[in-house]
Amino acid sequence: MNTLIKNALIVPMTKDGYTYRGDVKIEDGKITDNPNFKADKIIDATDKICMPSLVNTHTHSSMELMRNYKDTSPDLMSWLSEIFPLEDKLVDNDIKWASKLAMAEMIQSGCTAFNDMYFMQHNTCDALLESGMRATIGLTFFGNAETCKDRSKIHEELYSKYNNKGNGRIKFSVAPHAIYTTPAESYKLAKEWIIEHPGTILHTHMSETMTEVNGVLKDFGKEPLKYLYEEGVFDGIDVVLAHGVHLTEEEIQICKDNNFSIVHNPSSNCKLASGIAPIAKFLKQGINVALGTDGSSSNNNLNMFEEMHLAAMISNVSNMNPMATTPYQILEMATINGAKALKIDDKVGTIEVGKDADIILIDINKSHLTPLNDPLSALVYAIQGSDVDTVFCQGNILMENRKLLTMDIDEVIKKTNECWKDLLSR
Amino acid sequence: MNTLIKNALIVPMTKDGYTYRGDVKIEDGKITDNPNFKADKIIDATDKICMPSLVNTHTHSSMELMRNYKDTSPDLMSWLSEIFPLEDKLVDNDIKWASKLAMAEMIQSGCTAFNDMYFMQHNTCDALLESGMRATIGLTFFGNAETCKDRSKIHEELYSKYNNKGNGRIKFSVAPHAIYTTPAESYKLAKEWIIEHPGTILHTHMSETMTEVNGVLKDFGKEPLKYLYEEGVFDGIDVVLAHGVHLTEEEIQICKDNNFSIVHNPSSNCKLASGIAPIAKFLKQGINVALGTDGSSSNNNLNMFEEMHLAAMISNVSNMNPMATTPYQILEMATINGAKALKIDDKVGTIEVGKDADIILIDINKSHLTPLNDPLSALVYAIQGSDVDTVFCQGNILMENRKLLTMDIDEVIKKTNECWKDLLSR
Repeated sequence: MNTLIKNALIVPMTKDGYTYRGDVKIEDGKITDNPNFKADKIIDATDKICMPSLVNTHTHSSMELMRNYKDTSPDLMSWLSEIFPLEDKLVDNDIKWASKLAMAEMIQSGCTAFNDMYFMQHNTCDALLESGMRATIGLTFFGNAETCKDRSKIHEELYSKYNNKGNGRIKFSVAPHAIYTTPAESYKLAKEWIIEHPGTILHTHMSETMTEVNGVLKDFGKEPLKYLYEEGVFDGIDVVLAHGVHLTEEEIQICKDNNFSIVHNPSSNCKLASGIAPIAKFLKQGINVALGTDGSSSNNNLNMFEEMHLAAMISNVSNMNPMATTPYQILEMATINGAKALKIDDKVGTIEVGKDADIILIDINKSHLTPLNDPLSALVYAIQGSDVDTVFCQGNILMENRKLLTMDIDEVIKKTNECWKDLLSR
Repeated sequence: MNTLIKNALIVPMTKDGYTYRGDVKIEDGKITDNPNFKADKIIDATDKICMPSLVNTHTHSSMELMRNYKDTSPDLMSWLSEIFPLEDKLVDNDIKWASKLAMAEMIQSGCTAFNDMYFMQHNTCDALLESGMRATIGLTFFGNAETCKDRSKIHEELYSKYNNKGNGRIKFSVAPHAIYTTPAESYKLAKEWIIEHPGTILHTHMSETMTEVNGVLKDFGKEPLKYLYEEGVFDGIDVVLAHGVHLTEEEIQICKDNNFSIVHNPSSNCKLASGIAPIAKFLKQGINVALGTDGSSSNNNLNMFEEMHLAAMISNVSNMNPMATTPYQILEMATINGAKALKIDDKVGTIEVGKDADIILIDINKSHLTPLNDPLSALVYAIQGSDVDTVFCQGNILMENRKLLTMDIDEVIKKTNECWKDLLSR
């Protein structure tokens, strides 16, 4: 279906501060300037901001089940000790419905692409194909090399079955969990796997807490990134580091020199009191900084507008500078920078002719958006995820006037609640 | 109209951690346990959280007009220098529509009481009576004693006309703006006014930025609160201090010893990089800490759920302790503590028999609230202002199923946009 988005306030994310009033033509799933374009459907977007849909560059979608659960843990490690035993009891059906729920939540708050790290991923892949979103699915490495080798066969099957499926909507990463669960030898296996499977990237947790950093310092005499880097586990591959809260100057230089992307997860880092990642410093260095929600169990939702708001707020105040990061930089983190991290920036992240139509329309006819004034400021400081009205991915409408079109949300909510109840009783 | 809210998940805010499934009966505007109660209207609240409506304890409602405007100012003082010249051009019609818009926005995000500080307040009072909300209206003192004396007559008229109007929904504060605009002699006039008008409180900005603190230190050799306190301007009156970001230990002790309330405004303080108020320390001292949005021009909305989220996030991370403030403490700040600051806690802030029915229902049948698990955690970390479904004030329904019943929101948006356009051209 060819769609004409008419007379929108367009925030194309192609140039700092650039916005314009105009049309977007969607033909065969892509943004076009075809002069002979004929629309099957016309959307009057006079009261709408039109911008690239958001990219959630670090999440654990199926952790939806543990939302608002055991929130009173005193730190990341003790919280994980509550969560890991539950995860051991997860079955396919749990992952299926939790994945669908996560996708519903992300679409409803304007996100169409996410970078996932979890288990039993075939359920997530199936849900993804149905949902119409796109994702980079993590082939999780967790534990020692032997355990990871055992998983390689399952990963191989997953990759063969799903890579590039859904018109290229499924991509893969290899995702060694974190240095405190997964040793360097397993990271080396991950690197080998990536080199054998061009187009895959490495996705891992890095320097999230001082506990992690101090543990690696104690064991190996170096900080986590420096240690793994010097072990050669990142040589010649594309790397996405989630968190990076406690990177040293030397490690920041390593990120810069090697084009590593860092994913900022402000809600998770604040809520669990892990610390504040110095994103203004990263950006000043020219590092590609993306934005993520982390899992909803440490957030407690998957709302990228809330992440943008919080990222701006804590960057300003932690630097005691209200322009430490500009609204435009925050918007880049949530769109094009995420696309760059996932190596899909040729397709998504901006509104440009030739790119896939991964687009959101935001209803600005709202009390809390009146007057609108600066739309960039509005997007970061005032707009809510619930203001997202209509969502496209590859030109297909996933949500229209806030109604999800690719899933039955009542069924998804009901089934997820049933899974959770059952999981607690196992 | 007598309303029965049936089978709700009730968060009464009467005791830490206490929630229950039950009914709330509203008779003649109050919560009742009358055994002969007869409902005119029954609301099935099976999928709803029922809690006290929120209290926004520091705002400048009519600053709605300057939303997302001049957001690139490097600090509070230069931003104010952009705003003050515009404020000089404000006319009654601007305040009328901006006030209505602010009330719409607050009702839509679950707030029914606010503590206001602005100009031409009769427009706000008229709008308030129409809206069905309640407010403490600031009689603003700005500038030297002579200027403030000149305003006293207008304040007297306002007070006579509106105090306790709307079945007690309008109360007054005297609001000397801040030490950097309004000298101690004007604060003394404010104190005298309050003593002559029992039931009024003092509302002022205090220690918002280090610029303010350093200015007073330079001029008077003391920090702002210590200086004003020792000048005797707070003797024998009820005091509400907005911000309190940079209070010293000695000043915190003054607040404690004199039962001053402090209003935390996390969005404004983060956005303008003023600093992070140490609310965990205040609360530990037993100080009454409330929550506010500040004006929407430094926020950029009036969403108390967003404030709760940010307050929790920055308290956790700035203390490097995920339980620095608990979700329940944050909820108290947004409800009963605000009521205490405004001396209306005999009427609002909790769900208890005999109190006014100032109540909100929150729709929890949402993707991002599934599973709900801990409702207190959900309210602070996951729930959005837009999840508020139905709002009562004194038992009257101000919003039902997200439809505002006391104003025409389309008209309010249209008229506010017209006022703003006109103001910019004046």
